[in-house]
Parts: sequence; C-alpha cells; structure tokens
Amino acid sequence: MTGPRKARRATVHDVAAAAGVSRGTVNRVLNGGYVSSDARAAIEAAIAQVGYVPNRAASQLARQRSQAVGFLALEPHSLLLEDPNIGSIMLGANAVLSLADHQMVSLVIDSDRDMQRVGRYLSGGFVDGAIIVSARSHDPITRLIAEIRLPATFVGHPPDLDRSIPFVGIDNIGSARAVTQRLIETGRRRIGMVAAALDRDSGADRLTGFKQALGDRFDPALVVDVPLYDYAYGVKGMRALLDREPTLDGVFAASDAVAAGALETLREAGRRVPEDVGLVGFDDSSWAMRTQPSLSTVHQPAREIGRHAAESVLRQIAGDPVEPSVLLDSPVVWRRSA
Amino acid sequence: MTGPRKARRATVHDVAAAAGVSRGTVNRVLNGGYVSSDARAAIEAAIAQVGYVPNRAASQLARQRSQAVGFLALEPHSLLLEDPNIGSIMLGANAVLSLADHQMVSLVIDSDRDMQRVGRYLSGGFVDGAIIVSARSHDPITRLIAEIRLPATFVGHPPDLDRSIPFVGIDNIGSARAVTQRLIETGRRRIGMVAAALDRDSGADRLTGFKQALGDRFDPALVVDVPLYDYAYGVKGMRALLDREPTLDGVFAASDAVAAGALETLREAGRRVPEDVGLVGFDDSSWAMRTQPSLSTVHQPAREIGRHAAESVLRQIAGDPVEPSVLLDSPVVWRRSA
Repeated sequence: MTGPRKARRATVHDVAAAAGVSRGTVNRVLNGGYVSSDARAAIEAAIAQVGYVPNRAASQLARQRSQAVGFLALEPHSLLLEDPNIGSIMLGANAVLSLADHQMVSLVIDSDRDMQRVGRYLSGGFVDGAIIVSARSHDPITRLIAEIRLPATFVGHPPDLDRSIPFVGIDNIGSARAVTQRLIETGRRRIGMVAAALDRDSGADRLTGFKQALGDRFDPALVVDVPLYDYAYGVKGMRALLDREPTLDGVFAASDAVAAGALETLREAGRRVPEDVGLVGFDDSSWAMRTQPSLSTVHQPAREIGRHAAESVLRQIAGDPVEPSVLLDSPVVWRRSA
Repeated sequence: MTGPRKARRATVHDVAAAAGVSRGTVNRVLNGGYVSSDARAAIEAAIAQVGYVPNRAASQLARQRSQAVGFLALEPHSLLLEDPNIGSIMLGANAVLSLADHQMVSLVIDSDRDMQRVGRYLSGGFVDGAIIVSARSHDPITRLIAEIRLPATFVGHPPDLDRSIPFVGIDNIGSARAVTQRLIETGRRRIGMVAAALDRDSGADRLTGFKQALGDRFDPALVVDVPLYDYAYGVKGMRALLDREPTLDGVFAASDAVAAGALETLREAGRRVPEDVGLVGFDDSSWAMRTQPSLSTVHQPAREIGRHAAESVLRQIAGDPVEPSVLLDSPVVWRRSA
C-alpha cells in the first residue's frame, strides 16, 4: 500500500483555466450572476473536470450566513401541487442556487399556523433570502419580508407592492392581447373569456389584454370569472359562459388548466374544438400537450423565470445592484385547439 | 438599475451603536436583565430603527435543535413535479409537523451537486430528521442517513434496506392482485400489463401482484416495462404492448399517469375503453378523475401516508419507540375505464 496522493484542492483559478475564461467570469457563475449560456456550460464542465468544491463552511457562521434560500409559493395548496409552472420555476431557481452552493428550501404554507411559523423561520436567520411566487398585497409574509429587509425577489407581484422589492415575470397584458388577437384573426366572432384569479396581477392583466384586443367589440356579458387557475373552475366557468351565450365560437381561458376544464365542458355540450369553438389557454404547461386537441396557448418561460429570480436574490445577498423588474418573453404557441 | 438593497442583517453591534450604549447593555435587555429605563427605551427604539431580529438559527443550533424536518423526494425531477401523490404526502406530513411546531423544509435533488449539498445539509444540523420518498438502495442519501443515524422514515422502501429505518407504505402486491382480479372478473381474457419502475419495491410488487392474480394464465409476453411512472412512458409502453398483442382486452397500468398515457394510445389505435379494452391504473391520483373515461384504480391514501411518516419521525426525534413498518389500506376504486 502506498499513502494517498496528496491532491491539491482545485481553485477558481483551475476552473477558469480549464474553461478558458477569466476568474471573474467563474465567480459570476458561482455567485449566480449573468453569463452567456456557452460560458456557463463551459464553466460547469470545468467544475466537474477539475473537481472544484467551494470552501464555504469555515466562514459561514462568522458571516451570519445560512447559505440557504427559501422558496415559497403563496398559492392555495391544491393548486400549488398541480401547477406545473411552479415546479419548473422551482427547478430553474434550484439550478442557479445550487451552482452558487446555496441550499434551496421549499416551505409549504397551508394554514395560518404555517404562515406564522414560516414567518419566524424567514426572520430567524435560517435563510439568507427568499423567492416568493404569487404574493398578494395583504399576505403577512409579503409585509414581513419588506419589514425585515430580507433579500427577496417576487415572481409576479401584487399590484400595490412596494417597488423596492424586485420581481421577475412576463407581460401578461401584451401576451393575452396577442393570443386573443390571433383568435380574432382565425375568424371567431363571438369570443368569451373564462377569467381567473382577478385578485392577482396576472389574472387582472390577462383580462385587460383580452379587452384591449377586442376593443369596441368587447362584451362584458361574455366574461365569466373564477377564483383560481384550476381545472375544476375551468369546467364551472365554461358552463356558466355557455349558459349565457350558447352561440359563442371562441374562448380565451386564463390558464391551460382552466382551458382543459373548459374543453371538457365543451365536449359534454357537444361543441367540437376547434371546428365549432376555437379555444386558447395560457402557460404552455404540461396540460397544453395532453388535451385532445392540444392547446394553442402563451408560453411562460417558467424555468428562466426561476433562474432570474434566483440570480436576483443572490445579487441582493451579495450586496450587488439588481434590476427592479425583469419581464421575459412569452410568445404565442399555436397548436390545434384554435 | 437601482442601488443595492441593504442586505446585511442588523446585529447587536448595530443596535448598540444606534442606542449609544455598549453591546453588553443590549444583551442584558435581550436576555431580560436589568438596565435603566432610559437605556431600555433607547435600546428598544434602536432595535426598531435598525430592524434587528434575534438570530434564532444560532440559538437553536446551540441547543442542537433546528425544529425542522427535511422532506426529500428521490424521484427524477420531472416526475416529482407531476406526481400528485408526492404533493399529497407532503401536505399530510406538513400538517402533523406544523402541529408539533416543526418547520418542514423540502429539498430538491436534481443533480449530483444537489445530492452532495443536500447530504451536507442533512448532516449539518439544519434538520432534526427527514422523510424520504422513493428511496432506492444505492442512493447516497439513503446510505448517509443510515450512517449518521438521522431520525428518518421512508415512504416505501428499497428492497434491501436496513430494517432499522422505519417505513410507511401500502401493500402493493395485495392491491395489484385485487385490481387485476377484478379485471378478470369482468370477463377480460387477454390481459396485459404496462409495468413501471421495476427497480423500486412498488414497481416490482405491482408486477408480482399482477402475476399472482393471473396464476397459470400469466403470459410474460403480455408484460411491457418502462422506467418511470409517467404519462409519456404510458404512451410508449402501451404502443409496444399493442404491437405485440393487438387482440388484448384488458390492461393493468402500473400507475394512473401510465394509464392516462395508455388510454391515449388505445384511443389513437381505435380501441374503445371500456368497450373493447378494460383499463385499470394505480394511485387514485388526480389523473384518475380527469381521463375520459375516469379510471378504475387502487386508492393510495397519500395524505395519511404523509401523516404517519411525520409522526414516525417526530417519535424518533423524541426518543420514543416506533413501528418498524406501517402498511395502510389501499382499496380498489371501480369507475368507468373497466
């Protein structure tokens, strides 16, 4: 037996040399900053190649750092569990946090008791920052985060949110207008909407975009609104809309889950999609490819949203400046339901 | 760009500086000791001014308790996000932990890097225990937990798991046998199975139950197996099964997601369900009520499983004895697909 070979610990310098980039670029990746996807890929490969492990443990307590970032989705729990966007946002955020050696901890809020305990957790030094999905203005958590100045980024934002807290999202108004416009261009004349979650900016904005696209032809009688972006409410909302206007030939559903429920109702009512009724959704979630026919919808870049939110929180933790708001592209994806 | 938000947490030092007193005096106030009323008033004002929050993480770590329990699902990430059972297990566990004032922290494992960091998190005193879903024998996390003797309970268990680690689950063999038996009783003659995840006890056990129900009539040519319990593999597995045996009239799919994919393939192939082919799934997840027709399946009491797993971990943390294994009832639910 020979003794173990004394291996020198790989450094950022080694990673930079192997990736053919500067140390600054490597540090940006490690700290969650922006680099091109090519550089990121080269650096990730180099990290694996040289076996680089950041040395963080020693300084962690001295710096009062937990190296953890909370992830909270302030959605009704049943929706949280079924919304594929939230999962994708979570994975995008985790990828960035992981590379920066931060542990993402997801915290479930399912009761007032949870809300209070999570509040104590967030303010108790267990996390250095937080990503908050679907905050509303009056959430105690939203108020708490502003009070304790925890580095935090919102995914979407409540309409009257303190603008000092950055957010990452999409242009819901513009995207809703674009997808409705396209429905009009396919010749639909009586177009209704199953609106949802009007107490959030996303829900309110999608309705605004719908109105803008229709302009003078907008008819408030053709809008039904439901509380949540889910399948069961899609079924109910579509029934109400059909009762009100049996001859409609176009429907904008505020999410793909709502559209899937609406599709089921149209099927029960003997209305063929897209022959009799053109139907469009929003999100491009896994629902969109599973319905028969597949859904024409708006693509939400959920993973990218998660990545940007994590980068924003890491920059705040590092004391670096951040964009107060980031809006990512959300193009229309035209499939078979319209 | 805006300037950086103040990311550093306020310390006792900041409070002392703002109040114009020594740190010792601030600590006396924080610990309930005597100080003059003027000094107390100045310190309380300073605490509010600088936004000081006592670091509970540090004081809890000093007591060697985090009051937190980790929740890990060792599933491929895409499956984790789409499996409604995992969400229900999580909510069941959270309800019990919340009542015992423990914070549940969900940890995503999406890469080897995550696996290593989560390992450090679990062994670093950040949690007092863990609930592990879908562990497999060779998961590094499973080995680590056994090594460091972290209070932990598995939901399901790898076949050769150290029996000192308790688990909560259902009788997959008995339930698979019962649902296949019922398919036979409805007069199906050529019954196939889309098996899945044979590297886990749940997947292997469901196949065993299927074989037991068919007895002498079991035909290995009528079993196709796919790696994961998901919709896309259900589509593929059913195609392979139909190619092999176009005349089959009964199918047991290893999960509802697999059954939903199989249903889609049968529809494409022009086979009516249940008229031409009887189809049964497993899980009674949200898939079961959304397919057309709704699925006959086995009910997994996912929330109850989560509750029992959390109770088991809390008992271990308290040093109380626990049942080495808990099997909950999982009855057949007969709907319209068979």
